[in-house]
Amino acid sequence: MIYFDTDYMAGAAPEIIERLAATNLEETTGYGTDPYTARAKELLAGACGLDLANGAQVRFLVGGTQTNATVLDALLSRHEGVLAAETGHIAVHESGAIEACGHKVLTLPSHSGKVEALEVEAFISEFYKDETYEHMVAPGALYISFPTEYGTLYSLSELERLSGVCRKWNIPLFCDGARLGYALASPKNDVTLPDLARLCDVFYIGGTKVGALFGEAVVASNGALLPHFTSLTKQHGGLLAKGRLLGLQFETLFTDGLYERLASNGVRLALKLKAGFVAAGFMPFIDSYTNQQFFCLPNSLIDRLRQVASFEYWGPRGEQESKVRFVCSWATTEESVDCLLSQL
Amino acid sequence: MIYFDTDYMAGAAPEIIERLAATNLEETTGYGTDPYTARAKELLAGACGLDLANGAQVRFLVGGTQTNATVLDALLSRHEGVLAAETGHIAVHESGAIEACGHKVLTLPSHSGKVEALEVEAFISEFYKDETYEHMVAPGALYISFPTEYGTLYSLSELERLSGVCRKWNIPLFCDGARLGYALASPKNDVTLPDLARLCDVFYIGGTKVGALFGEAVVASNGALLPHFTSLTKQHGGLLAKGRLLGLQFETLFTDGLYERLASNGVRLALKLKAGFVAAGFMPFIDSYTNQQFFCLPNSLIDRLRQVASFEYWGPRGEQESKVRFVCSWATTEESVDCLLSQL
Amino acid sequence: MIYFDTDYMAGAAPEIIERLAATNLEETTGYGTDPYTARAKELLAGACGLDLANGAQVRFLVGGTQTNATVLDALLSRHEGVLAAETGHIAVHESGAIEACGHKVLTLPSHSGKVEALEVEAFISEFYKDETYEHMVAPGALYISFPTEYGTLYSLSELERLSGVCRKWNIPLFCDGARLGYALASPKNDVTLPDLARLCDVFYIGGTKVGALFGEAVVASNGALLPHFTSLTKQHGGLLAKGRLLGLQFETLFTDGLYERLASNGVRLALKLKAGFVAAGFMPFIDSYTNQQFFCLPNSLIDRLRQVASFEYWGPRGEQESKVRFVCSWATTEESVDCLLSQL
Amino acid sequence: MIYFDTDYMAGAAPEIIERLAATNLEETTGYGTDPYTARAKELLAGACGLDLANGAQVRFLVGGTQTNATVLDALLSRHEGVLAAETGHIAVHESGAIEACGHKVLTLPSHSGKVEALEVEAFISEFYKDETYEHMVAPGALYISFPTEYGTLYSLSELERLSGVCRKWNIPLFCDGARLGYALASPKNDVTLPDLARLCDVFYIGGTKVGALFGEAVVASNGALLPHFTSLTKQHGGLLAKGRLLGLQFETLFTDGLYERLASNGVRLALKLKAGFVAAGFMPFIDSYTNQQFFCLPNSLIDRLRQVASFEYWGPRGEQESKVRFVCSWATTEESVDCLLSQL
Repeated sequence: MIYFDTDYMAGAAPEIIERLAATNLEETTGYGTDPYTARAKELLAGACGLDLANGAQVRFLVGGTQTNATVLDALLSRHEGVLAAETGHIAVHESGAIEACGHKVLTLPSHSGKVEALEVEAFISEFYKDETYEHMVAPGALYISFPTEYGTLYSLSELERLSGVCRKWNIPLFCDGARLGYALASPKNDVTLPDLARLCDVFYIGGTKVGALFGEAVVASNGALLPHFTSLTKQHGGLLAKGRLLGLQFETLFTDGLYERLASNGVRLALKLKAGFVAAGFMPFIDSYTNQQFFCLPNSLIDRLRQVASFEYWGPRGEQESKVRFVCSWATTEESVDCLLSQL
Repeated sequence: MIYFDTDYMAGAAPEIIERLAATNLEETTGYGTDPYTARAKELLAGACGLDLANGAQVRFLVGGTQTNATVLDALLSRHEGVLAAETGHIAVHESGAIEACGHKVLTLPSHSGKVEALEVEAFISEFYKDETYEHMVAPGALYISFPTEYGTLYSLSELERLSGVCRKWNIPLFCDGARLGYALASPKNDVTLPDLARLCDVFYIGGTKVGALFGEAVVASNGALLPHFTSLTKQHGGLLAKGRLLGLQFETLFTDGLYERLASNGVRLALKLKAGFVAAGFMPFIDSYTNQQFFCLPNSLIDRLRQVASFEYWGPRGEQESKVRFVCSWATTEESVDCLLSQL
Repeated sequence: MIYFDTDYMAGAAPEIIERLAATNLEETTGYGTDPYTARAKELLAGACGLDLANGAQVRFLVGGTQTNATVLDALLSRHEGVLAAETGHIAVHESGAIEACGHKVLTLPSHSGKVEALEVEAFISEFYKDETYEHMVAPGALYISFPTEYGTLYSLSELERLSGVCRKWNIPLFCDGARLGYALASPKNDVTLPDLARLCDVFYIGGTKVGALFGEAVVASNGALLPHFTSLTKQHGGLLAKGRLLGLQFETLFTDGLYERLASNGVRLALKLKAGFVAAGFMPFIDSYTNQQFFCLPNSLIDRLRQVASFEYWGPRGEQESKVRFVCSWATTEESVDCLLSQL
Repeated sequence: MIYFDTDYMAGAAPEIIERLAATNLEETTGYGTDPYTARAKELLAGACGLDLANGAQVRFLVGGTQTNATVLDALLSRHEGVLAAETGHIAVHESGAIEACGHKVLTLPSHSGKVEALEVEAFISEFYKDETYEHMVAPGALYISFPTEYGTLYSLSELERLSGVCRKWNIPLFCDGARLGYALASPKNDVTLPDLARLCDVFYIGGTKVGALFGEAVVASNGALLPHFTSLTKQHGGLLAKGRLLGLQFETLFTDGLYERLASNGVRLALKLKAGFVAAGFMPFIDSYTNQQFFCLPNSLIDRLRQVASFEYWGPRGEQESKVRFVCSWATTEESVDCLLSQL
């Protein structure tokens, strides 16, 4: 059986496992106060064009939902909610973690997973025109994901417009980068880490789905936006005792371009898979250039593919076809994709 | 430098690292639905004398604060708080994680970290005698730690009395076992895993401090006490994507008695350390038989010890002495203890 | 100036003021333990065809948002949210009070303020078909308002269908009756208080907008659905010290048909107002038979009406017209309506 | 039967009932935007030596628990708790309302209900000396009550010292004045409203217990400390629809010295009652100079007094005596006190 279900099915890049093994019996202080974490912070800040000595902040948490909840809880006042696409991960797939912190997710239309700057602007300006706005939940931050849950990408100019709206209204722009590597590695992408650091107030670089055992690296160009973040992370249950495990993984990922190489594998194979399906006459129902691919396929073909491969079923379209998702990752092999395509 | 600061300074038991490496590129489904997790659940249930087919539940989370908050949020109604020693970890050292879920920690006197069954009984019976009790926070669960934050142990009969009070009042008894191995391995201990499973409603078996990279295993003899626990864990940010990392570690720990062996190392060396200090004429200020040792030492000696060793400073006692804590763990070596004692 | 802005602009029915004055210096115990409250509970239970001795519960709170938050917090588990029309008061106009308790509002399409039983059924059944439903917020209750925020009414058969869906899925049906009197008094209404008590699990009878100074009466045919409700109400800041003020007002409202008379005044005058506008050639944009009326009017007419009357502006429709709302209440006079209509 | 149970047993000062009746059918806008509320704000600011035009803020809420929770939620960051005496109302008698907002109540020793400036200072300075303070709940505000739950008073110099500590550490001082009138009217008191406004960051002037039907007036010399307070009040369920009821009551209370007169009645009669018991040979167990009096009495006397009077039982002291509380209020009559004393 070959797996295209998701991008967190394998363990970690072998370089990470080797490093874990090599440093295993060293003893360091906990909670991210160790030298591995310090080095990882420097490396990531550098990759983002930021300077820790100049107020930038890099922090490591274990998982995405935890990171979203902790960061948004830090960014939002009690009377504020967070704007997000109605398909955004925080709006749909986090078991209400944001609401559990007391904050409403204010939904915007989803354009293949993306929000539109004009619609963000309209929401906020309409909000403050409403005479009863104090009886409503104020938009206190904008959440986007990059790439989105549908594998789509914001262009640099789209991101600049979103950032402009947020700055005009003085609300932070927060980017969920759980799959960030697969955006950066896409041939269609024109956004860099320094662009993200410049345009977003807070974003994170996902490790869990891009070669780490686990871990998300939060980056804020202005660390003052995340005051008392250690306490808040502890309160949210996200302060890993052996914090060096996070530092060590991100140090490894950001040494010698490993993160890019891992992500590129996922994107390259996903695009090969896509090209193979298209060549066989099938059309994607979302035009993704990252590591997730979305097709409508005949149910008979789906049944046949299931003999060799595992992938997500996204529901019927009509009586003969269904929507499915194929995900490639840093761990996917050329052979797996070839094997799948050979079934077409 | 040798380290006695705490028990989460080294990585993991080599057996765990080997197993992680050996299985690293396997692909499994996420969030604890993998076969490693299934096997670990069976192994732990078995070690606790429980049967998963008979309603028992075993669940894996990443860290202790996360586990305490998630379990207590599952156990408590909105109008209820949790009873705990005033020195309990949830009362002091979790950045308000329990209150962040909306629940008050109702504190009881600490007897070297332990609560007294008679005082629990008195608290609850006084509570319901108060005519205004509906204006107060109802005691909805009892939290204990075993061993306690001060290394002390409940005897089986103490635990039976606590369990009896809880059952009389129909509130769950929840035991924080972050260092559980070091209790079970103590020569003074007469409590077994099946005893805990029988007397506590929910408890957890700590991995982070006893040889795992991270991970806590929650055990409930009656799983119905933890309904919708996957959703709640997700909401609390504790559902690890690559859940098999937890299953695999606990599977390893509970194979061939590894967990016991690791814990025994910590306890044996801590007691050797204690005996060495006592022989040199120093008296512990808490009489611990687990992996944490607490001494009042002359400040001049502390300065000398600090040349070779790192340990926690717990504050002054008078002008000439101070309180310090030494912790041994699964990773502590005989040489380290010998080296420390050679300074006396 | 005459006022059609809303239904909480005047004080209270004179009968209530007289009763407050007559009993003012009596001394009673607090928090709703007084005889006025006891009598009011009996009266309301009786009006709803319920028996307090048989498990029914009647409770009094101060305001609507407070009542919605307290009741839903009592009904929902931590992992659950509440289904509501996207126009529902809890979804829009309560400053995030439901989310502040940790619960997501799961929105359904609004049909002039109403939800459709088929869409509720579809939401819930789709939810449990989703393989990832444990990562989503479970629908734990259904919130409706009667009349809705748009003055519309559920028919008895619509309510029966909603109730049927809720019981099929074992989730409580909760009805916000902040304006309930104006529904019951509508000539188009075929739902009675006993129907509500039978079909809803919890509902409330609004006082604030129907002749009381303040106060909402929560009714549950099965009081066991609201355990520890005094504590929860206190926790939510809704337990009025001088609870008898609530009891006394509802006792007065439910004596000699006062509540019905007050509500009838509001509905009768609203329908007269509506008829007057229709006769003058204007069409309502929502066809309401309760005390709120919604018209699109030429901007020039709106300007003229504003010389004598105050009413809510609901935004433009095209360049020449705007949407406005007129609300009549128990306190509106025939002269006020005549005066307004004389401007047409 | 005569009542000394508490100070919220009667309705309101007749002047308030008259004013309610006289203005009853007037129509005003809601939620505190009416002219009565505006005038009351001016009057109270004036009484406190503050200027609304200069940033001071006065807000009205319905009850004390609601006010404590809303104000503290506004003042505290998510990682912060509130310091309070272990006997403070928020620590004991609010059903966990503060924790329900996510904040821990950090308790200090109670000295007959009061906290000591030196102990506040010690708590905060010890807190920040602790190396693990980020794992603990930061003291983010200081809550005091004036008079305290035990009827005791802070002297002006004690209040100045508390204020000094709070300002040194830059945390707001919040004073619960649910019974404030009875402090101001005490012959032992040397604190004025302008003193409170100057020394506290936020405090409230209780109406519920001092002659109003309900209502608490929050005063902040620097209104910027309570940003978005309307939204927060709405979210907490404390925004009264007919807000003018609050404005009108406080306007009446602060016209012609009514508030002082009402409070003076309660204090004068409480001190007469105290003197009578002392003259009869009984000693108070708390030496209160406000409207609450606390005595240890022989059980036989208590039984006899209960024939004519109702009062609170506070538990046994030994086998022959018990502690009881007598409360006088604005509504207590000379005859009631005489009648009680005649039983001695």
